[in-house]
Amino acid sequence: MFLGTQRVNEAGHLEIGGCDALALAREFGTPLYVLDEETVRRKCRALRAAYEKRYPSSLMLFAAKALINMAVCRIMDEEGMGLDLSSGGELYTALRAGFPMERIYLHGNNKAAWELELALEAGVGRVVLDNEREMELLNALAARRGVTQPVLLRVAPGIKPQTHSYISTGQIDTKFGLGISTGCAERGLAKAMTLPNLQVVGLHCHIGSNIMGLDSFEMAARMMIRFAAHLRDTVGVVIEELDLGGGVGVRYTADDQPPSPEDYAEAVITGVHEEVEKARLPHPKLLQEPGRAITGEAGTTLYTVGTIKDVPGIRRYVSVDGGMSDNPRPALYQARYSALAAGDPLAPAAEVVTIAGKHCECDNLIFDLALPAVQPGDVLAVQTTGAYTYTMASNYNRFTRPAMVLVRDGQAELIVARETLDDVISHDVVPARLAKTCCCCG
Amino acid sequence: MFLGTQRVNEAGHLEIGGCDALALAREFGTPLYVLDEETVRRKCRALRAAYEKRYPSSLMLFAAKALINMAVCRIMDEEGMGLDLSSGGELYTALRAGFPMERIYLHGNNKAAWELELALEAGVGRVVLDNEREMELLNALAARRGVTQPVLLRVAPGIKPQTHSYISTGQIDTKFGLGISTGCAERGLAKAMTLPNLQVVGLHCHIGSNIMGLDSFEMAARMMIRFAAHLRDTVGVVIEELDLGGGVGVRYTADDQPPSPEDYAEAVITGVHEEVEKARLPHPKLLQEPGRAITGEAGTTLYTVGTIKDVPGIRRYVSVDGGMSDNPRPALYQARYSALAAGDPLAPAAEVVTIAGKHCECDNLIFDLALPAVQPGDVLAVQTTGAYTYTMASNYNRFTRPAMVLVRDGQAELIVARETLDDVISHDVVPARLAKTCCCCG
Repeated sequence: MFLGTQRVNEAGHLEIGGCDALALAREFGTPLYVLDEETVRRKCRALRAAYEKRYPSSLMLFAAKALINMAVCRIMDEEGMGLDLSSGGELYTALRAGFPMERIYLHGNNKAAWELELALEAGVGRVVLDNEREMELLNALAARRGVTQPVLLRVAPGIKPQTHSYISTGQIDTKFGLGISTGCAERGLAKAMTLPNLQVVGLHCHIGSNIMGLDSFEMAARMMIRFAAHLRDTVGVVIEELDLGGGVGVRYTADDQPPSPEDYAEAVITGVHEEVEKARLPHPKLLQEPGRAITGEAGTTLYTVGTIKDVPGIRRYVSVDGGMSDNPRPALYQARYSALAAGDPLAPAAEVVTIAGKHCECDNLIFDLALPAVQPGDVLAVQTTGAYTYTMASNYNRFTRPAMVLVRDGQAELIVARETLDDVISHDVVPARLAKTCCCCG
Repeated sequence: MFLGTQRVNEAGHLEIGGCDALALAREFGTPLYVLDEETVRRKCRALRAAYEKRYPSSLMLFAAKALINMAVCRIMDEEGMGLDLSSGGELYTALRAGFPMERIYLHGNNKAAWELELALEAGVGRVVLDNEREMELLNALAARRGVTQPVLLRVAPGIKPQTHSYISTGQIDTKFGLGISTGCAERGLAKAMTLPNLQVVGLHCHIGSNIMGLDSFEMAARMMIRFAAHLRDTVGVVIEELDLGGGVGVRYTADDQPPSPEDYAEAVITGVHEEVEKARLPHPKLLQEPGRAITGEAGTTLYTVGTIKDVPGIRRYVSVDGGMSDNPRPALYQARYSALAAGDPLAPAAEVVTIAGKHCECDNLIFDLALPAVQPGDVLAVQTTGAYTYTMASNYNRFTRPAMVLVRDGQAELIVARETLDDVISHDVVPARLAKTCCCCG
């Protein structure tokens, strides 16, 4: 499986964005996150085009939790995307990257006062309200500044899609938003309408992540329009914006068959059109929040192979120089991945191996991967690591977190600097009474 | 459940190390890791005493992966502990803390050349060999320096204890060490004996983590002595050191009944004595590697309560200002925790709630916790967070990682500084062609 601009170059090596993967590993070291800029941009354009031709009033928001740093914010700005942000830290990153604040949607089930203050100070486009307490807090903070903040209300439509329970967020039993079926969403919206420094412009829902089927997306779209019609009839509000969240899956392995942007847009927008007509509602502005679908397949992690160990009759372990600190998804979600031997990706598979990390824990990255014979020193390219790897990385075992390079047209540019050992100890403080006072400990 | 020095003070608040938990939250902010120094030291002393009175030639190594920073290294040095380290980053931390290198045991299934070089340069006490390739590499590096490195060999005894599969490491199907039953361990040891710049002094095994029963520890001890006897008879080596790893569980909830240091030492040492006598072996120096058992119960994380949300008829969600970024264990291992209302820990339970984090994911920290009624702004103390929380922390959603304070006798000292938003973006690099060049983006 080759993804994005991945191909085999004249030397027979894996190439990404026109860059030889072995040369990248040599120049920047491993583990290395490689981000394929062309693929990121193509995914943005394909999703935007699929929506805009069917539904002119739409805006794509990139779900920054999948992959955020200042360079990625710049690319999203150039592509005309908005940003779906989940925290003050993500907002600070976007601010420092000069991202247009009117295209920021700030989410969160438990926004702190400082985060809401930062949002008001920055002038973010929308705050997505999660609950009644937050409404009161935001209203009070906005009143103090003499501003009116446009808001959406997050609702839980009561849909449980087929995905991992940790990333299933639209069911009724969730910390996120207010339930439709429980009456909480209607009461919450009615309350928000009474708060003078909030301007209620719409609704938001997000049913979950890495979903392969289209049914639950279409069902959510239909339910949200019906709920909007209900709100018109009861609370007397007309929804101007409908943010249907994200959640489209990607190809982690060749078995995965995520929906195309066209099919996704067709399913959702057909649902919206039909329900809007049935309910005689004006067409709301439509928003979606793809994250993984934009950057997932554009990311590749390069590792160097180290220990190769046979447990006779059971398994061959191929250990690499990273692991659960740079990619916790296999441990967190039992996620599956594919990988290529970067030095000769087309060589026929010679063996089935398990790719293990080097942490002091059973941090296997890939079970039962068919690979050409590999040797210590070879470079392994684990695919589809452009979402929820770097953003979830830790310093477990005091590993330094990897660098990230942006590749395009044969050029590689550093967009995240590799951590050093001094970075890892940079926040350690030794109280004077505990300090060692010998001549040799520096 | 109160752990370590936790008690209720005159004000009716939770006190840890003589410090009022509400005052700690006010002074240092939340989330806050609080480390109870007296409890850490007591655990070290209890384990050391339990071993030393039964088996004078023994050394306790603290498994630094559970909790490492420079201050913790200093405490371990003062307590006469050695350190079980898993990486060059952990070794660098110990070095910079002035930890005595002769009490360092360096582990790892895939040690890099730079890590072995650093170990030789620093003069670590033991390198724990994992595999044959590493033997050759270490031997060559040691030869180049003209030194002989004392080593242990890690073996997989083929024991699968009752614990989470991610932290079960002693079974035959593992990336760690060389199997006894497969013959790999014997071959590996024979090979190590032929390498002139390695001095084989013993064996190591580690069967897993957070184990509540004693049977598998005793069984591992017996198997290792029998294997040592076998090696004497076949390879002709007499084992001087036997490192039996760690793995003793702790009290995450009142239901947990981990073995006492005395019972643990009694079971292991009884097994060692009996097998040593049966096999007519000299008594080896005995090492253990407790990590969680030393710092787990000494750690408490203070959070501030934010959103409280009722899903009618289903669940009350109490959201706090941290989550899976400061404690990934509930998501990784389905780990259970206990918590106290820090402002009034003795108040009768008024409700059963779910403690949720504030990440953009279903990061529930504790399901179905009986708590007194809590309000936004209250401080919640999650207990037994002194192991595998801080060391596994991430910046997911660009959260800043918490501070850690060491508390003792009413004094609180910062030992890990809280990250700032600027820390979070400190490694981001924006290539010039992507940079925004307007007047307002700083």
